[in-house]
Amino acid sequence: MSVRSMEQKDKKVLCIGLVCLDIISVVDKYPEEDTDNRCVSQRWQRGGNASNSCTVLSLLGTSCAFMGSLCAGPVASFILEDFQKLNIDMSLVSEHAQCVTPTSLVISSSSTGSRTILHINRNVPDVTAEDFSKVDLSHFKWIHWEGRNVDEQLKMIQQVARHNAALPLQQQITISVEIEKPREPLYELFAYGDVVNVFVSKDVARHLGFQTPQTALEGLRCRVKVGAVVICAWAEKGADALAPDGLLVHSDAFPPERLVDTLGAGDTFNAAVIHKLSNGARLEEALTFGCRVAGGKCGFHGYGGIADMVTGQE
Amino acid sequence: MSVRSMEQKDKKVLCIGLVCLDIISVVDKYPEEDTDNRCVSQRWQRGGNASNSCTVLSLLGTSCAFMGSLCAGPVASFILEDFQKLNIDMSLVSEHAQCVTPTSLVISSSSTGSRTILHINRNVPDVTAEDFSKVDLSHFKWIHWEGRNVDEQLKMIQQVARHNAALPLQQQITISVEIEKPREPLYELFAYGDVVNVFVSKDVARHLGFQTPQTALEGLRCRVKVGAVVICAWAEKGADALAPDGLLVHSDAFPPERLVDTLGAGDTFNAAVIHKLSNGARLEEALTFGCRVAGGKCGFHGYGGIADMVTGQE
Repeated sequence: MSVRSMEQKDKKVLCIGLVCLDIISVVDKYPEEDTDNRCVSQRWQRGGNASNSCTVLSLLGTSCAFMGSLCAGPVASFILEDFQKLNIDMSLVSEHAQCVTPTSLVISSSSTGSRTILHINRNVPDVTAEDFSKVDLSHFKWIHWEGRNVDEQLKMIQQVARHNAALPLQQQITISVEIEKPREPLYELFAYGDVVNVFVSKDVARHLGFQTPQTALEGLRCRVKVGAVVICAWAEKGADALAPDGLLVHSDAFPPERLVDTLGAGDTFNAAVIHKLSNGARLEEALTFGCRVAGGKCGFHGYGGIADMVTGQE
Repeated sequence: MSVRSMEQKDKKVLCIGLVCLDIISVVDKYPEEDTDNRCVSQRWQRGGNASNSCTVLSLLGTSCAFMGSLCAGPVASFILEDFQKLNIDMSLVSEHAQCVTPTSLVISSSSTGSRTILHINRNVPDVTAEDFSKVDLSHFKWIHWEGRNVDEQLKMIQQVARHNAALPLQQQITISVEIEKPREPLYELFAYGDVVNVFVSKDVARHLGFQTPQTALEGLRCRVKVGAVVICAWAEKGADALAPDGLLVHSDAFPPERLVDTLGAGDTFNAAVIHKLSNGARLEEALTFGCRVAGGKCGFHGYGGIADMVTGQE
């Protein structure tokens, strides 16, 4: 099949960002300082926002690719195997022999449900505009950036905009960004010309002074360009979105019977929304689906259960 | 060289016990429950008592071998490479595809010097007497057991005793055991016929009701057979030993200028003492050397500095 004849539905979603290792230790109670403790269980999980979103996209049946840096060493093989297991295209992953895989230690207390995180990221280079310039964009229908190195990311978005400019609308690449961390420089992504979908976290909304998803979206309306979609998920309050026509859309949360594992719930929500929108669903439907999948995911460890959850329900 | 002609000085020290992965995260202060934190640094280190003692023996210039179980997976290759880097003989390591490498998460606070440990060991089989029966004992001059599965370990010690019985004294294998964890079943190792050297931890001594190394050794005198050496290291109090002639020997501690990393200090002490004794030193000299190397080790991270520390000093 020649690239020109590739139909939009056969193209992939590309997620650009971090892949890291999560080591999740479940304890009966959070350890006191300077004591020896036994974990109830411990597991390794491929982590990182963009990497997690790929996992969920793949489980939902959307072909996707991950672009990011991988470090050499024993963790890399674990991560690569896990990507492979989920059929995630890794051809855009670059290996960096000199760096060490970022690792998050997650201490999960079964008595309180708390999640204490110890993260380190020493020296892993983010994807640059130069790396990105080598990507054959004709393979993708949607590109999602986890907001990190904004200056470079803005240049990448410009590259996609130039690519889109030469194409009819139905062959263009949809652009989305995630603004998860409350860091001022990331807020440049709000107003950026060709960004169509902005995922804003509760943390960012709060950092900007908003107390509910509705007030956040009303307040952010003036920050984004006309026609952009802003989506804000807010745990137990569900999610809200500012539609292209300026109306607000809401979905309630779908909490599980018992909260088991909230790690990666936000990445799950984003992926489920992208899955729906990239397959032509309306915003309201996508938002509800995002809440349903993310809520369900909190009822089990990891992501494996997502495939079962949505079978026959879409 | 035929095995019969192998001289005692060309034989190795064998350490039998656990190898695990230590992930050491250095933090400014111990994290509060349910917060996100950044580590100052994070490193992987091959751990486990017997495995650490091999590291130190090798750095001190004593040929040694490790016997224990290794699990399949990405951690195994890290551990194997690290053993290789230190020229530790791994021919007696058995791989178990179905198990997961035991992992200790160590949270080290630089403000308080505290060490909080989260350990998991799911299903790694200990070395059995049957495994041990296949070992060619003629390659070893000293065999050291980390007290774990006592019933099996007593059978292994019997095998060595039978091997020794057929040999002249100068070709016999010296037997040592470590009783580190305050667990009653391990105390069977105290009185066992052919155990010549018993390393007792401060924790065990305290568990038995002793408040100083001297009172511990006086108290333990009746538990061990005549002629056995009992050695008890006690951090800042240095170390004491009950000599074969029943006299008590003492060494002061050699604390570093600044306490940096106490992880594995006990394993370092044991290895340094075995290094000296297996090369013909007197107990007093070995004890002082053990305190010096273990104290020095607390002044730097990991074990690498040991080689520099002892160069030209022995």
